[in-house]
Amino acid sequence: MAQNIYDRAEFFENYARLPRSERGLLGAPEWPSLQRWLPDLQDLDVVDLGCGFGWFCRWARERGAASVLGVDLSENMLARARSLTTDGAITYRRADLERLTLPERRFGLAYSSLALHYIEALPELFGILRRALLPEARFVFSVEHPMYTAPAHPGWVLDAHQRESWGVNQYAVEGPRTTDWLAPGVIKQHRRLATYVNLLIASGFQIAALEEWSPSDEQLAAAPQLAPERERPTFLLVSARVA
Amino acid sequence: MAQNIYDRAEFFENYARLPRSERGLLGAPEWPSLQRWLPDLQDLDVVDLGCGFGWFCRWARERGAASVLGVDLSENMLARARSLTTDGAITYRRADLERLTLPERRFGLAYSSLALHYIEALPELFGILRRALLPEARFVFSVEHPMYTAPAHPGWVLDAHQRESWGVNQYAVEGPRTTDWLAPGVIKQHRRLATYVNLLIASGFQIAALEEWSPSDEQLAAAPQLAPERERPTFLLVSARVA
Repeated sequence: MAQNIYDRAEFFENYARLPRSERGLLGAPEWPSLQRWLPDLQDLDVVDLGCGFGWFCRWARERGAASVLGVDLSENMLARARSLTTDGAITYRRADLERLTLPERRFGLAYSSLALHYIEALPELFGILRRALLPEARFVFSVEHPMYTAPAHPGWVLDAHQRESWGVNQYAVEGPRTTDWLAPGVIKQHRRLATYVNLLIASGFQIAALEEWSPSDEQLAAAPQLAPERERPTFLLVSARVA
Repeated sequence: MAQNIYDRAEFFENYARLPRSERGLLGAPEWPSLQRWLPDLQDLDVVDLGCGFGWFCRWARERGAASVLGVDLSENMLARARSLTTDGAITYRRADLERLTLPERRFGLAYSSLALHYIEALPELFGILRRALLPEARFVFSVEHPMYTAPAHPGWVLDAHQRESWGVNQYAVEGPRTTDWLAPGVIKQHRRLATYVNLLIASGFQIAALEEWSPSDEQLAAAPQLAPERERPTFLLVSARVA
């Protein structure tokens, strides 16, 4: 079973105070990039893997989705998500993405925000998802960028010219990384960028676009604290379609 | 016009002494990965962008290619390449990849080893190449990895735990980088990995596979000096097909 970090009180309390938790999609600076890739949602069945507080599920319904299935492992997250809507076309289901089951040929869009870098059985999940999608369906997701998940001790270092640099090591060594983010002992699964791409292709997806997110000039002017994102990306965004 | 670094005496002399210059394809540790992606060459017309000493051109003919066009900007490289074969089905052409012309719908394989990270007009080159390829053709190439081309001062740094790390900065800032490699003042064009992928897709290619090259266990046992390649990749390998 995947680590259920979001149900640890310390982690959850810190997570709930992040801008992306309090303000939803607009609190996530990479959201405009993901949104640009989404198809017309009118009458589509949508699945959101790692739905958290359900911000995307509710947004998808506002855009005309016929139904939305939000999946998450965390009781805390789902309780909050359920408290935020009375919409009967949104279903929140508690499930472990390590062993998810989904109906076949059902969804017109699969979406996932910053959840899949926790998953060990990603090849299996991509396969299940591929079979759950309709022809022409899209799979749009974000993960922590492999440059961000690779290092044993993620952080900034000064290079020989006293320039702040992001220290990358063990990039080719895929597997678990234990880091302290919001709480100690958070386990992520490091994969190379090429591995995400090759797994998708092997699962029957075609790559439509990638983005290694960095702020636009406007975003940077409004939020100067995003400047380090130009030095190295935190987020990898992927748009795939059924091949 | 592209910088013609290979015709500067200091650079050329140092380059000619690299294992990949003296030993050819087998002196390049990433070659087995690229080779695995190549189609059956029997009766194909092949183009090699940045052919250097022509190692790949000669290899392709040994594998049955009908003809090979090797393109390079460097007189030095082409003189050496021409001295190494009398094969009339190999044509070496001096041309700047910044303004290449190629016949349309002609080639069954385009190949390029460590040349395209020098090219500013890469979108134009991908377009020309796409039109020069037959349906079902492959485009297989390597470039210096974006993690390698990004930093202002590429090099290793010690992180807070005294671990050797590769310092990444200005990853999102695409454009020229001037570094000292074999000779001072070598100009490369940094692009994000996502940009290579998106440019290919926009030019009418489909991504078949990516590899961020690192040595296999066997390679590492035979050449322990390759160990840093597991910490961060030097080479990005791409296999694309006509979409």
